[in-house]
Amino acid sequence: MRDLREATGAEVRRAARSSELTGPTPGLARGYVQANLVVVPRDIAFDFLLFCQRNPKPCPLLDVTEPGSPEPSSVAHSADLRTDLPRYCVYRHGELVDEPTDILSLWRDDLVGFLLGCSFTFEQSLIEAGVPVRHLEMCRNVPMYRTNIACRPAGVFRGPMVVSMRPMTPEQAATATRVCARFPQAHGVPVHVGDPAILDIHDLDKPDFGDPVEVRPGETPVFWACGVTPQAVALAARLPLLITHKPGHMFVTDLSAADR
Amino acid sequence: MRDLREATGAEVRRAARSSELTGPTPGLARGYVQANLVVVPRDIAFDFLLFCQRNPKPCPLLDVTEPGSPEPSSVAHSADLRTDLPRYCVYRHGELVDEPTDILSLWRDDLVGFLLGCSFTFEQSLIEAGVPVRHLEMCRNVPMYRTNIACRPAGVFRGPMVVSMRPMTPEQAATATRVCARFPQAHGVPVHVGDPAILDIHDLDKPDFGDPVEVRPGETPVFWACGVTPQAVALAARLPLLITHKPGHMFVTDLSAADR
Repeated sequence: MRDLREATGAEVRRAARSSELTGPTPGLARGYVQANLVVVPRDIAFDFLLFCQRNPKPCPLLDVTEPGSPEPSSVAHSADLRTDLPRYCVYRHGELVDEPTDILSLWRDDLVGFLLGCSFTFEQSLIEAGVPVRHLEMCRNVPMYRTNIACRPAGVFRGPMVVSMRPMTPEQAATATRVCARFPQAHGVPVHVGDPAILDIHDLDKPDFGDPVEVRPGETPVFWACGVTPQAVALAARLPLLITHKPGHMFVTDLSAADR
Repeated sequence: MRDLREATGAEVRRAARSSELTGPTPGLARGYVQANLVVVPRDIAFDFLLFCQRNPKPCPLLDVTEPGSPEPSSVAHSADLRTDLPRYCVYRHGELVDEPTDILSLWRDDLVGFLLGCSFTFEQSLIEAGVPVRHLEMCRNVPMYRTNIACRPAGVFRGPMVVSMRPMTPEQAATATRVCARFPQAHGVPVHVGDPAILDIHDLDKPDFGDPVEVRPGETPVFWACGVTPQAVALAARLPLLITHKPGHMFVTDLSAADR
């Protein structure tokens, strides 16, 4: 397979469309904004849009498609949400039923696609600012935890905020906060720094999603609102049909991370 | 009538609810955020919410109610959108049919209320910063103009951005920009400073909405995205039912303008 690390967003999307790319996207198309995908039918799309509007930190909206249109025209030219992600998850009544490489046969005139900002967008900037990103150093997925922070509900959608965690020194946490303030559409500044118990997290080694990472002496955990939140909430609603990206297999936009 | 200038948002809402207050709200409950109201049925509320999400400068969302609920619980405690505005406009198929002081008899289980930020919120801060607000000095409504800036459409909602105009010196325009950057939920920084022709506005003395104001020697017109935009767009969609506040007769929230 070609090296897609220096590719454009459009090149990664084309590789996914042709099924040349069926694996995860972190590290690909460096400098381009990657996004979480949630697809729901129009009859509950209002509730989901309202949920995102009420909870902008975990659910930063990058684009929402017109019902039936698979093209997120404001963030990716000539893209097709049905084919341009490497792999999808299809849920029926809250149960995972398939992980296809396209959703052409599932598409309907009433489906609405939501693209939500993702922390991959700020991690490169953290590294450039000298802040360690431990899960990347360890080649793992970021650890994620359910918290006691209730999202503001909307219609059928309700549930706790999920956070991601990156360990670093207090000085690095201050730098990370400054860096992430530039990325309000990628979760923005941390929601909490320090004692995990405040968030009702009692064992950092047992994340609810992703992989645990090492916290070194002198480091403190730093927590960000996480894009898994809207997916967890959508899943908990046990909708007749819900389609998302497979974790780590994101939609790559035409947006430059530097502009976010 | 009591002097409501130093009243709280809740006190103004109570006065509107009892029909003690049926007139305009500018200058009342100073320091509290006032909001535009748009009420539409749920079946097109998704499109309208999407329109607002796609056009945040003219349509800064302060709150959206659950279908059927008249309480905008995140911005006003124990408020009721059916009674707590001094006066409403009721449109059917794009035609104004009534201007009642409550909408209790019109309310339905499928209605959704949208509260949108309003420039009244930043005008007091402009005055405190030494920037003139000419239409207040002249005791007039702010002049508003249709422009050649197309809003991003969503479903049935499409149309040009409407802007409000305040004349001031270039130095005051710089101050106003700095002040308004603090109010992203009240239209934020100006969309244009200077030559109105750039926006396809050819006679400042003939606003499309509101009243003309004097532009003095050495002053330049400064234009802000205006909350009349979503109303004009909703009206143009000629919906079977659309309810808004009567211009100038706003919903007063519990939010402090200083916090915006």
